[in-house]
Amino acid sequence: MREVEIKALLVDPYQNTPVVLLKDQGSEKVVPIWIGTPEATAIAIALQEREFPRPLTHDLLQNVIDAMGGELDMVVIDHIEDSTYYATLFIRDREGEIHEIDARPSDSIALALRTGSPIYIAEEVFAASAIDLPYEDDDQQREQFRVFVEKDMNLAEFKKFIQ
Amino acid sequence: MREVEIKALLVDPYQNTPVVLLKDQGSEKVVPIWIGTPEATAIAIALQEREFPRPLTHDLLQNVIDAMGGELDMVVIDHIEDSTYYATLFIRDREGEIHEIDARPSDSIALALRTGSPIYIAEEVFAASAIDLPYEDDDQQREQFRVFVEKDMNLAEFKKFIQ
Repeated sequence: MREVEIKALLVDPYQNTPVVLLKDQGSEKVVPIWIGTPEATAIAIALQEREFPRPLTHDLLQNVIDAMGGELDMVVIDHIEDSTYYATLFIRDREGEIHEIDARPSDSIALALRTGSPIYIAEEVFAASAIDLPYEDDDQQREQFRVFVEKDMNLAEFKKFIQ
Repeated sequence: MREVEIKALLVDPYQNTPVVLLKDQGSEKVVPIWIGTPEATAIAIALQEREFPRPLTHDLLQNVIDAMGGELDMVVIDHIEDSTYYATLFIRDREGEIHEIDARPSDSIALALRTGSPIYIAEEVFAASAIDLPYEDDDQQREQFRVFVEKDMNLAEFKKFIQ
């Protein structure tokens, strides 16, 4: 298993779909995961550490886990099947029992960002899907790839684009 | 407190926003609540009893509550402030303790539909916001109001409209 961090949230210029790039902490490789628009927005909001007056859906999920005395130990993106990634939430309840709950990677990431929990990726998923960063790490190339998160994310632009 | 049921999910022709109409079981009045597009979709999917291969966000919320041994006793739309409706989830844990969790009505309804839990509305909210059904209960008027849920909801049309 490899711990990953969110390298970027961008829009795939070919499929016109949000993609999150998860970067392996032990190498320069990234795993791209295509996600839905509402989940991309939920991730973007967490990355920006923006607060809203009312709890959004993933905030509510976090609040429910908190209220019930649970804690999100980690999320693991653990397999891939027919180009679909599967993840598992590991929630520890107040008795210390761990509950493994099937989830989409997008929801898992949106939640892990809120709880500060680590995100792992199984070795076989990494082997099957890791790539080099699909753009050079300079401003011009980033611009071409419509990278909205990283050092200088612009959520308004991102939302405009994905709408 | 009054128990309500979902009368319709429609698009407000004036504000171009999804609205859920909650009908009081004891009268012909409805309470309209304006909601976001992703939550409208989550409600529409639950009303249609459609199943997806992967858990959507509100399915995940339901699965987390289940896994931790909780149960959604009810949701209550309990106050309104500056035109914003507030709701509370009442989740009973396996020790029987009730946790009251602040939520948006849209998330609360999307969850209650999945768990089969009752939806209540506080008397003062009802008094402040209940109206007569904003269209006649015949096909032509329903059509004008773009009512997508009721006897004959068309989710594809609904999604096309709200996109």
